[in-house]
Amino acid sequence: MNDDLLTRDALLAYAESNRQAFEGELRTLVDIPSVSSDPERSQDIRRCAEAAAHLFVRHGGTAELLETPGNPLVLGKLDGDPDYPTVTVYNHLDVQPANEPEWTSVPFRMEIQGDTYLGRGTTDDKGPALTAFFGALAARAAGVPLNIHFLWELEEEIGSPSFKTGLTQHQDLLATGAVLVSDTIWLTRGRPSTPAGLRGLAGFRLTLETAVHDLHSGLVGGAARNPLAELMTAVTDMLDGPTGRVKIPHFYQEVTKPSRKELREWTHSGFDVAGFKHDYDLLSLRSDHAGKIMKRIWARPTMEVHGVVGGYTGPGIKTAVPPRAEVKMSCRLVPDMDVATTLNRIRKFLAKRHPDVQVHEEQGLAPFKGQVSGPYAEAVKAAYAFGFGVPCCFTREGGSIGAVSTLEEVLGCQVYFLGLSLPSHGYHAPNENYDWEQASGGMAAFAHLFSAVSGFPRD
Amino acid sequence: MNDDLLTRDALLAYAESNRQAFEGELRTLVDIPSVSSDPERSQDIRRCAEAAAHLFVRHGGTAELLETPGNPLVLGKLDGDPDYPTVTVYNHLDVQPANEPEWTSVPFRMEIQGDTYLGRGTTDDKGPALTAFFGALAARAAGVPLNIHFLWELEEEIGSPSFKTGLTQHQDLLATGAVLVSDTIWLTRGRPSTPAGLRGLAGFRLTLETAVHDLHSGLVGGAARNPLAELMTAVTDMLDGPTGRVKIPHFYQEVTKPSRKELREWTHSGFDVAGFKHDYDLLSLRSDHAGKIMKRIWARPTMEVHGVVGGYTGPGIKTAVPPRAEVKMSCRLVPDMDVATTLNRIRKFLAKRHPDVQVHEEQGLAPFKGQVSGPYAEAVKAAYAFGFGVPCCFTREGGSIGAVSTLEEVLGCQVYFLGLSLPSHGYHAPNENYDWEQASGGMAAFAHLFSAVSGFPRD
Repeated sequence: MNDDLLTRDALLAYAESNRQAFEGELRTLVDIPSVSSDPERSQDIRRCAEAAAHLFVRHGGTAELLETPGNPLVLGKLDGDPDYPTVTVYNHLDVQPANEPEWTSVPFRMEIQGDTYLGRGTTDDKGPALTAFFGALAARAAGVPLNIHFLWELEEEIGSPSFKTGLTQHQDLLATGAVLVSDTIWLTRGRPSTPAGLRGLAGFRLTLETAVHDLHSGLVGGAARNPLAELMTAVTDMLDGPTGRVKIPHFYQEVTKPSRKELREWTHSGFDVAGFKHDYDLLSLRSDHAGKIMKRIWARPTMEVHGVVGGYTGPGIKTAVPPRAEVKMSCRLVPDMDVATTLNRIRKFLAKRHPDVQVHEEQGLAPFKGQVSGPYAEAVKAAYAFGFGVPCCFTREGGSIGAVSTLEEVLGCQVYFLGLSLPSHGYHAPNENYDWEQASGGMAAFAHLFSAVSGFPRD
Repeated sequence: MNDDLLTRDALLAYAESNRQAFEGELRTLVDIPSVSSDPERSQDIRRCAEAAAHLFVRHGGTAELLETPGNPLVLGKLDGDPDYPTVTVYNHLDVQPANEPEWTSVPFRMEIQGDTYLGRGTTDDKGPALTAFFGALAARAAGVPLNIHFLWELEEEIGSPSFKTGLTQHQDLLATGAVLVSDTIWLTRGRPSTPAGLRGLAGFRLTLETAVHDLHSGLVGGAARNPLAELMTAVTDMLDGPTGRVKIPHFYQEVTKPSRKELREWTHSGFDVAGFKHDYDLLSLRSDHAGKIMKRIWARPTMEVHGVVGGYTGPGIKTAVPPRAEVKMSCRLVPDMDVATTLNRIRKFLAKRHPDVQVHEEQGLAPFKGQVSGPYAEAVKAAYAFGFGVPCCFTREGGSIGAVSTLEEVLGCQVYFLGLSLPSHGYHAPNENYDWEQASGGMAAFAHLFSAVSGFPRD
């Protein structure tokens, strides 16, 4: 291992001298419209997977497509010696659609404007995927004794429906010491942040049937039951709508407070209330206090009403009482909460108070709790400091990434995050972009991380 | 006045000898598909109005069509002497659609099966209209000194949108001492009942907007407001869904208990819980106690949820938080309650607890309180006893008939009910029918009533 090639200056020089190659590879991937939600793009998905495989071979690695019941997984390898430890970087190459009229460039033809790369998929997640790859090339050039693998999914934007099956089918090819996920967003430029927790999801529907057909609210109203009104009572027995407080006993039992260390990190994470409201076009919030907002979206579970079916939905009113109704709901869960336990508490609570209300389970995703200390967490922190001059804050993400718990579960290893995207990059938005500052800093950070990980004592 | 022609035997004999004429006139009207909710039937509506006018002339009366902004009103007159008192019978000649596959006969071709008349409109309300008319012919034949007018509407099944305007426009032609409405249903055959009260209606919508577009329940859930959940809390702050109890202060302030006399009549009205559940296909009720059910549907106000707009309504769940939501609601009001007062209480209550929730007023109908004593009420009771051997019970109706309060208000007189339909006649249902027992008894009852009314002292 040549330490001279692993200084910050050397790695930034490596990035500069490979900038054209990086931009060329990024253009190749961005120009393929790998929209996973569009069945008509399945050939493009396949083409994108093959282009990715060629990329590994072109740069001296190996690659194969792992077939699944859905889109294939790309497994690329920059292997050194079987005795080296192995680390795997997860990214995805499928993208969101790009039909928004606000695009100022052609979404699937990458455009370079100075240091900015415009196009669908540049930041989510093709740019970060290639950043990690070029970081790995730099580490390999410096002789870092590590086998670096890349697992690139092509169904992330549609909820990873084949990911678990694919991972399980090809488990023997995927043995690794740890997984680094590079698909997250900092809170603001210049202040790296990385999630140390993701919320899970427990989806469910409530249904109630009290009659056979619409009833005349005059002729029978008062004696007849109203399933919409009863379900509303069932929901509000569980939930205080304005505050979001869940009233089911023990619902919060497993919820732990963020540690003082975490809270300190959050304070310096760059989270900004005005920016948060602006980014999501929020007219008003349950609280305008930054600390409370972070706690609510990262460290507290929720219960939401997503939709109601039943009754009249046209203009004005129609005074019939509907015979049946349905409420679509879900809870976001925080680490240490459990999908089955949460649903059981809901079932038990409703069975007692509203015995006729049926609870139907929908999709569930376990919450994810990452490490904020230990050698990997320290290495991630150091890598950010190395690449960007500032160590990362460990924050959390309020959303659920199903792939993360699947990786932990199937591969039996810890998952860490080394994301590079910025809010201004426009995830899922028109004029999505990525930039050279994040790419070159990211390459240095990844190379540094690979170097650190190669020195970890083996289990 | 020839009292010999007004005995029960004489009047039933009059009915028998005019049975063919009655059935011929009923066939003429039933065979015209006067479906007011179907714009393609407007020519049939006009044809029906003209056929009705011819009917009066054919039987020695006069008639004219009173034009309104919508369908015309038919005003028919059997006048004697300008010095006689005047009474007006209200019916409607428009009918419900008849698309139900369960029809065993052609809905708009009247079929006679023994004593039963099958066809759309036979009982609602063409049969009762002609029953009153033939009762009037019998009274005229006996020389009853009364001017008997008939006001036949053609928009009742669509909520009488032009009725008030039409009445007001032609007010000078409509002067009358009282109005008899013949468009209500007994609770069971053999036990006449007549409503002494109708519920009113205060319709409204609640809306709440908390964001601009769908929000990601993971990324912002917990901090972001949920308009569906908040509206559910607003609704359940006002209403206990399972019991139907309204929690707004003073909501029940004007509600009076039914008198002991009324309660006694209800007990003997023939109301039957099993029949009520069967008639409306009710799976379960808020109470299975006959007295409580009657009180709830006739003498207590309600608050109902009719529909919810906002969020996802497809299969399964979608975990977005919608930016806005709407709840469609109404209250049925009992006598002495007021539409504006009720809505003001709702507005005031919500303004305090849910200041962002908007309340939008929809259609309102005043409740109606009839007389259960006094000369007309006694005459109605005696007429039923005369025609059917049993005096009527004064019950109430839970629905709202907008025309009734309009008649009272515009014509400035009391409204009484002399309905002849039975639950088994299938109001608004397939295989609607009417029968000769109700028709002949009804003719005798009406003739008796006209005779009694002619002797009332003039104001």
